Amino acid sequence: MPLEHPDRDEIELTAVLHALSDPQRLRIVAVLAADEEPRACGSFGLEITKSTCTHHFRVLREAGVLRQHDEGRHRMTELRRSDLDARFPGLLDSVLAD
Amino acid sequence: MPLEHPDRDEIELTAVLHALSDPQRLRIVAVLAADEEPRACGSFGLEITKSTCTHHFRVLREAGVLRQHDEGRHRMTELRRSDLDARFPGLLDSVLAD
Repeated sequence: MPLEHPDRDEIELTAVLHALSDPQRLRIVAVLAADEEPRACGSFGLEITKSTCTHHFRVLREAGVLRQHDEGRHRMTELRRSDLDARFPGLLDSVLAD
Repeated sequence: MPLEHPDRDEIELTAVLHALSDPQRLRIVAVLAADEEPRACGSFGLEITKSTCTHHFRVLREAGVLRQHDEGRHRMTELRRSDLDARFPGLLDSVLAD
């Protein structure tokens, strides 16, 4: 089953704000923002279970904050910075500055 | 009992993002931002019950997004714009621009 991603125009501000309102999800976004290469899920240094990690990625992906695709056995994750900057100018920068 | 308000330095980004992640709360903030005079609770034109309204105001107040004080029988509400702009520069502007 393909992974669900909203189109740029479908990204909702309240869903993005909700997705960013968790400290672990904010950390994931900060890591992705600092290095724009797609990353494998295990590489975020989060001290959480795999199922919690999967949950956080799904919330972020379904809100339109990040994009995921499978490469062999790895699910690679990248920030949708240009989509977010186009939809909500300044939002990501202000959140990441904290 | 006095109303709970975090000091400026205690305002947490994730709490603010959570408080803003609801369409009705976002509408309340937009109304307060457009007219900086303190407003009474009944004046927001929200089609929600009083208890839901009270809940939304409490979430916003406890996150540090707005300040409330009682004037006679009215509870007056105002946006903590200078506190939010100082803690998270650009955040409120980017959220309100949508």
